[in-house]
Amino acid sequence: MTRTLILLRHGQSEWNQLNLFTGWVDVRLTDQGKTEAKRGGELLVESGILPDVLHTSLLSRAIQTADIALDAADRLWIPVKRDWRLNERHYGALQGKDKAQTLEEFGQEQFMLWRRSFDVPPPPLDDDSEFSQVHDPRYADIDGEVPRTESLKLVIDRLLPYWEGAIVPDLEAEKTVLVTAHGNSLRGLVKHLEGISDDDIAELNIPTGIPLVYELDDDNRPTAPGRYLDPEAAAAGAAAVAAQGDKK
Amino acid sequence: MTRTLILLRHGQSEWNQLNLFTGWVDVRLTDQGKTEAKRGGELLVESGILPDVLHTSLLSRAIQTADIALDAADRLWIPVKRDWRLNERHYGALQGKDKAQTLEEFGQEQFMLWRRSFDVPPPPLDDDSEFSQVHDPRYADIDGEVPRTESLKLVIDRLLPYWEGAIVPDLEAEKTVLVTAHGNSLRGLVKHLEGISDDDIAELNIPTGIPLVYELDDDNRPTAPGRYLDPEAAAAGAAAVAAQGDKK
Repeated sequence: MTRTLILLRHGQSEWNQLNLFTGWVDVRLTDQGKTEAKRGGELLVESGILPDVLHTSLLSRAIQTADIALDAADRLWIPVKRDWRLNERHYGALQGKDKAQTLEEFGQEQFMLWRRSFDVPPPPLDDDSEFSQVHDPRYADIDGEVPRTESLKLVIDRLLPYWEGAIVPDLEAEKTVLVTAHGNSLRGLVKHLEGISDDDIAELNIPTGIPLVYELDDDNRPTAPGRYLDPEAAAAGAAAVAAQGDKK
Repeated sequence: MTRTLILLRHGQSEWNQLNLFTGWVDVRLTDQGKTEAKRGGELLVESGILPDVLHTSLLSRAIQTADIALDAADRLWIPVKRDWRLNERHYGALQGKDKAQTLEEFGQEQFMLWRRSFDVPPPPLDDDSEFSQVHDPRYADIDGEVPRTESLKLVIDRLLPYWEGAIVPDLEAEKTVLVTAHGNSLRGLVKHLEGISDDDIAELNIPTGIPLVYELDDDNRPTAPGRYLDPEAAAAGAAAVAAQGDKK
């Protein structure tokens, strides 16, 4: 008996469009992002891989993506769990900053270190910043402290307990699980699933809006690399993600 | 310590617009219905009554209503539980039939008996009907049988275990609870809350899209009658519901 896991990265958000570091800032999808989400749902229907249960982050752009994709797939009614542990990486003091400007100001090396190093977080975000989440009621029940910044390593540290404690039990109950989340929380999950090294994960870019499907064995390890339901669009999308920051 | 319960009936659906009996048939909101849902969310913001947790039926029009209202209220991230026990009344063999035609065919007395009697269900819907839900995967886990028809009494019988088992615990945890559901499941809940008699419930019409707020005491009884967040619109809406069926 194999288990099916579907990962879906949210489509274009208002700040993707403006080329700003977003992290935990709760921006919405653009019209293009909504179109991507709808296409994601249609790909699920076309492939006949229909989720039985949904897991999302607490960020509106991932929730919108799920709602639109599930509407397109006629699965609005499936159970849903939301958790901050699926949130995007907290980008610390970079939240709200322009990516191209940051690249120019700090140079390619520092920029790529913040964006793609495994364990170097950006400087922490000040609690008084308008882009801070320390006073956001949605994180009132968080165990421990609301992050001020995170590396990919820290994302994985807070993600894996949710994977083990909430997602794996659904897979073991033979549910087809949909996870709608973010570039870095999904990179962290793929790193774990595929056993990608701390160095090699820097090269992995996950395109938006295209379901990535894994079949898992009894130990919840993939029986093969993940496959995108639209491989051509996925390759183009991954290249576009890699080229961010270069955009002026 | 009072507890706050918000009831929200979904706005206009595709079949409301066509004046068809809907019941468990899973039609979507119209654009007008989406506008009503958005207004419902705005009323929550204006009144400062923000839900901490959501309960919906398994029907898309209630789920859409919740998603749109919560988006307007910036509360997409709250936890959600969905359950068939909050579904609309199953309208039996009337599902898919035109209300005005049914009135003409069966006469005012029979029509009002089916619509407003407490314990007379319409004839059961045939399992082979395109409007039957007996083979719908969303009801695969239902305890007991998928309904073929229901009276309001039967709705209350299947609703109250969910009220006691799922909604009351949230209220007792001091959560402000939003329930997005349907004309008859909400009539059943209001009957229970306000102790309305089997006869008098026939006169109660709940308008669409306008949050109905209860403050409850330690025994989960209302401290006062429910209040609509837009009383004028609610009165007009209730009159419009009462006049359905008359529409040609």
